[in-house]
Amino acid sequence: MTNEKFEMSENSFSEHDQKSEIFDDSEYQEHTQHMRKYETMEGFPEIKGYNFEEKFDFDKFTDSFKNTGIQATNLGMGIEITNQMIENDTTIFLSCTSNMISSGNREIIKFLVKNKYVHAISISAGGVEEDIIKTLRPFVIGTFDISGRALFDKGVGRIGNIFAPYDRYLYFEKFMQPLFDRIYEEQKSRKIPFTTSEFIFELGKEIQREEKYEESVLYWAYKNNIPVFCPALTDGSLGDLFHFQKLKRKDFYIDILGDHQKIVNIVLNAEKTGAILLGGGSAKHYVLNANIFREGLDYAVYITTAQEYDASDSGGNQQEAMSWAKIKVNAPNVKIRAEASLVFPILVAATFKKKFDRDKK
Amino acid sequence: MTNEKFEMSENSFSEHDQKSEIFDDSEYQEHTQHMRKYETMEGFPEIKGYNFEEKFDFDKFTDSFKNTGIQATNLGMGIEITNQMIENDTTIFLSCTSNMISSGNREIIKFLVKNKYVHAISISAGGVEEDIIKTLRPFVIGTFDISGRALFDKGVGRIGNIFAPYDRYLYFEKFMQPLFDRIYEEQKSRKIPFTTSEFIFELGKEIQREEKYEESVLYWAYKNNIPVFCPALTDGSLGDLFHFQKLKRKDFYIDILGDHQKIVNIVLNAEKTGAILLGGGSAKHYVLNANIFREGLDYAVYITTAQEYDASDSGGNQQEAMSWAKIKVNAPNVKIRAEASLVFPILVAATFKKKFDRDKK
Amino acid sequence: MTNEKFEMSENSFSEHDQKSEIFDDSEYQEHTQHMRKYETMEGFPEIKGYNFEEKFDFDKFTDSFKNTGIQATNLGMGIEITNQMIENDTTIFLSCTSNMISSGNREIIKFLVKNKYVHAISISAGGVEEDIIKTLRPFVIGTFDISGRALFDKGVGRIGNIFAPYDRYLYFEKFMQPLFDRIYEEQKSRKIPFTTSEFIFELGKEIQREEKYEESVLYWAYKNNIPVFCPALTDGSLGDLFHFQKLKRKDFYIDILGDHQKIVNIVLNAEKTGAILLGGGSAKHYVLNANIFREGLDYAVYITTAQEYDASDSGGNQQEAMSWAKIKVNAPNVKIRAEASLVFPILVAATFKKKFDRDKK
Amino acid sequence: MTNEKFEMSENSFSEHDQKSEIFDDSEYQEHTQHMRKYETMEGFPEIKGYNFEEKFDFDKFTDSFKNTGIQATNLGMGIEITNQMIENDTTIFLSCTSNMISSGNREIIKFLVKNKYVHAISISAGGVEEDIIKTLRPFVIGTFDISGRALFDKGVGRIGNIFAPYDRYLYFEKFMQPLFDRIYEEQKSRKIPFTTSEFIFELGKEIQREEKYEESVLYWAYKNNIPVFCPALTDGSLGDLFHFQKLKRKDFYIDILGDHQKIVNIVLNAEKTGAILLGGGSAKHYVLNANIFREGLDYAVYITTAQEYDASDSGGNQQEAMSWAKIKVNAPNVKIRAEASLVFPILVAATFKKKFDRDKK
Repeated sequence: MTNEKFEMSENSFSEHDQKSEIFDDSEYQEHTQHMRKYETMEGFPEIKGYNFEEKFDFDKFTDSFKNTGIQATNLGMGIEITNQMIENDTTIFLSCTSNMISSGNREIIKFLVKNKYVHAISISAGGVEEDIIKTLRPFVIGTFDISGRALFDKGVGRIGNIFAPYDRYLYFEKFMQPLFDRIYEEQKSRKIPFTTSEFIFELGKEIQREEKYEESVLYWAYKNNIPVFCPALTDGSLGDLFHFQKLKRKDFYIDILGDHQKIVNIVLNAEKTGAILLGGGSAKHYVLNANIFREGLDYAVYITTAQEYDASDSGGNQQEAMSWAKIKVNAPNVKIRAEASLVFPILVAATFKKKFDRDKK
Repeated sequence: MTNEKFEMSENSFSEHDQKSEIFDDSEYQEHTQHMRKYETMEGFPEIKGYNFEEKFDFDKFTDSFKNTGIQATNLGMGIEITNQMIENDTTIFLSCTSNMISSGNREIIKFLVKNKYVHAISISAGGVEEDIIKTLRPFVIGTFDISGRALFDKGVGRIGNIFAPYDRYLYFEKFMQPLFDRIYEEQKSRKIPFTTSEFIFELGKEIQREEKYEESVLYWAYKNNIPVFCPALTDGSLGDLFHFQKLKRKDFYIDILGDHQKIVNIVLNAEKTGAILLGGGSAKHYVLNANIFREGLDYAVYITTAQEYDASDSGGNQQEAMSWAKIKVNAPNVKIRAEASLVFPILVAATFKKKFDRDKK
Repeated sequence: MTNEKFEMSENSFSEHDQKSEIFDDSEYQEHTQHMRKYETMEGFPEIKGYNFEEKFDFDKFTDSFKNTGIQATNLGMGIEITNQMIENDTTIFLSCTSNMISSGNREIIKFLVKNKYVHAISISAGGVEEDIIKTLRPFVIGTFDISGRALFDKGVGRIGNIFAPYDRYLYFEKFMQPLFDRIYEEQKSRKIPFTTSEFIFELGKEIQREEKYEESVLYWAYKNNIPVFCPALTDGSLGDLFHFQKLKRKDFYIDILGDHQKIVNIVLNAEKTGAILLGGGSAKHYVLNANIFREGLDYAVYITTAQEYDASDSGGNQQEAMSWAKIKVNAPNVKIRAEASLVFPILVAATFKKKFDRDKK
Repeated sequence: MTNEKFEMSENSFSEHDQKSEIFDDSEYQEHTQHMRKYETMEGFPEIKGYNFEEKFDFDKFTDSFKNTGIQATNLGMGIEITNQMIENDTTIFLSCTSNMISSGNREIIKFLVKNKYVHAISISAGGVEEDIIKTLRPFVIGTFDISGRALFDKGVGRIGNIFAPYDRYLYFEKFMQPLFDRIYEEQKSRKIPFTTSEFIFELGKEIQREEKYEESVLYWAYKNNIPVFCPALTDGSLGDLFHFQKLKRKDFYIDILGDHQKIVNIVLNAEKTGAILLGGGSAKHYVLNANIFREGLDYAVYITTAQEYDASDSGGNQQEAMSWAKIKVNAPNVKIRAEASLVFPILVAATFKKKFDRDKK
């Protein structure tokens, strides 16, 4: 628990109410002596859910999460912390695994990037390529429960319950050829390989060739000069295409070392840094690791299905991150245990969307 | 996938588009020959998230879930199926574990019971007692991360991130004494023990003594004659209180066999049955098991964090339930993988709340 | 962390080693000043896995879990705590969900009950009926991935990847008829309904009629007078059969209140109590709740896939249980995050099996 | 289900036993007409757990997993599939997240690499650096439940319940300096940057300077010329050190594109490929993606805690991988849902350890 309203620690109990004489001695009490001693916790915020008999009010509805308990309370805290980030001119990192781009959360990420509400992106390779692919041709709603054989026979890849027909990857290949040519030529002329984020910047520029380029996250990142980091760029179809480039052009390189300086500079120059981390993987860890350079994030909102108990970094909680100076020990922080397609739209509706409406006025 | 719009099966692919000549042969294709064969899946619903640049519209927002992919699509289906239940005059069973009553979902369940939108409840013992307890004194927002020792020393029980000071249980005991006396007398005069649901009915009647009785789920269940089943009534603090009754009154009984007939009659007499199952445990299974008597539910919406892989009934999916005739093989059904405090409010906002607004007019 | 060897607390760090001059100032250190201050943690047990180049030794193998880290360390602790229970003549409660009986863990539970290594059982209704059913006809290995329709059409119920053909339930019904008759007659003559555990005791007695009765957990519980508690007895096929009894015999009762006294007496009379809890549900909670009467278990080993974050009792951790006096605040305790078919056989191999071998000599 | 013994499909039911006259019509049957129709499934392998009354036999014990049901059956299948890989001279890929190296599974991976039982490794960046770090100084057993502040104050990083004092990273930095110098010089002289796997190869060579170099996975990989792939090399402390190199040496590069060719060649030249995938992340995906070049792995064993429902690649199941030609549609495959420190030691004990003992004779 982190922000003022919810402040709760082992020292926060008042001492005045330890015993009470309002109850008679009863058998129940005789057998449960320890229950005679208690704090009444008066004044603490009560658990209370939304009242649907009133006229529906979305703001009241999202406000009610805080007092609902369980993960709704965590979502409520995530909203408060995100609003604090916004108010305090925080440099905000957004990390996401590729499924966030496969899904409709892509449009919401685009909204954030287009409006410069986030200031650096960290993403897995699939997210980079799928943003381009979906600008060419959409993915469609599928189902989790279908045999791999049936889909393989039809030439349709599956991402959870999202279907990505193989032809999308053929369009992608076609799209990439001129870009590869251009980048290779530029590399030769400037004599310095492109870093990963520079390459992604070029992708965002190149996508303007396509009709629906304004749907692309990478386009807006290019347009708004928001760096997109991808610590494992070759881990996917993009890596395959690079492989064929490399077969023809032995001296084609991508510089993975150069981006570290860029992200470290952002971290060091920011007055405050915050992170909204959708899922885990290297996309998440890359943001956390960079923030060690300032001894930790000032705000952190995790949305994840991964658990602590397996000691993975993906599942690691904020206390673990604090032990590594990835998050400041006094930073407002929360982990919302949920699949992000359910929760991220609500988080954005109650935070960045409000800023958008304020700014428009 | 179950309802029309989303209908998807291994046979639903059209065959006409197996090959395409629009792509040149490239190295990429040479190495991935299998990708030459694909379905374009034109006409399938596209993955697309909500557009926050438009004026916020809650209905459009919840509509967007269906097309967002991953669990948002499942929530979208849950909304559709629930609306189908409402339209088709379905007899709706609601099951929940006790943490749903501990949390603010209690107010939402109360809304459903008060307005007769659900027709039978199945609940775990903690849910029965906590509805009464919270009518006497509220629970408060706490934190997951606090030592057991700190809370034990202060006399505060913890339910996830919800705090339940021990005094609540002392108030509960006080409240129960006259009810136990009354019920014992009635049992002696009518010469038939109360069944579990009859006992819970009396609780809902008795709570009228308290100022805030209209907050109680059990009060509205009593008032509206909606049966509340609790297959494990003694598993909790209520069991402890019964234990002390039993010490004094050896012939005090609760009849657990009698309720089966009541739930089976509801199942057999309904034109259609549906279930909204929040979490697992005996509360969930009791509803599923009863519906075997009609060879399965006609609609099923699961909201749960439990997984299939451990072969528990709590985690068991709808296909497993179908194998037992608990759900009809052609019934619209969905499992939303989420903690219910996050999702149930949204589900209700997009379904029963709309009915409420329609009915009010 | 609980037992001596692993004792670890925020105060257990020695203070003498805060700074070190062995490292030169380097750029890395300049940028990560906070890393100049550290504990070396010398003398703490090192992380080290098993050495497969030596002759395989099962005892060394299981000993190696403690030092392996992550959940293996928790399993190592579970083994130590269970061995402590055995050494200290602890009254051991075993709880399990019904899938433990569906699976081969049934044979291991039978081993424990037959040899009086556990002293009270708490089980869900499915566990009671499936122990009898499997004594009549076995369940077979199936698969998780099969449609409900296929199984329904063939008359086969599915429990995870275990198949239970419907005929098993018909055999079960046949088996139960004479027992129901006998119990009803006895109830009429003794004028007191059977409690749940008394009824289960009679099941264990009745199963002797069958050829393979020595495979039954309930038989050995009967034989060794080990009480079997089942707080939700009617939640399953047994409930359905009771329902038909009740239709003919309105005055057929099962007393659910009576068992509370039995379990409370065990709890109060034990010098020390311990619990091995396989999965959650009412089977787990019933054991924990009863131990409030002695202000908590002295030992607790959880094996579960359920998580804390949903605030369910099934997922509730030991710190939560301590807040309710269900586990003593200083009790050795551990939660092994695993599906129990993988872990329980190993736990028993490294604990009760060794006692068995010692006792036999 | 995949291998012969367990072959199970919707067509595998025999038709001869659809009806039976052995049961009388009873009330139960009248109400559950659908149960009159069933398969008896005679001849299917019965569910049966290990018998602890016999002399303990580890081989029989691990054999018993197959018939235990639930995840034990999956572990039994994992053992069978792994043994098939061994018998059929399969080129085996091992992927793991860094926590596998943090934990004692490192020693088991070392055993496999030292004895050339696996033929390519894919690992996350933390795994590369921690293998070196632990060769310098060990990690120690910690606890999950400790505040981040306490550890930060003491200079101790936490990885689940494993403690990594900060000084380890200072030793690591010291160790790396001469290697960076050497590699930079070699890069300048050969005029081609090192690829990621080449760099890791040099790490394995360099570690020979240290006393305990034979404990290192990377040493044995170097010694046995087993390539170690790391698609996100800079995502961790190694990335930080590279960053400082880059500040001094602008022309220091690591070539991430080059490794693709190496892994693709392994994939294309292998007669059969198999994968043992511990956890998810880019380490897992990189192996799967490479195997698209041969239209899929011939064998796959997943050990993971990640779930399908969030549509992440980490949680993606084998059917999803088949849709992408990452696994052949008829390949033996299994997903064991477990934290790998519990299961991987047993898998190795029942497979590679036996080969080791056979080979030694």
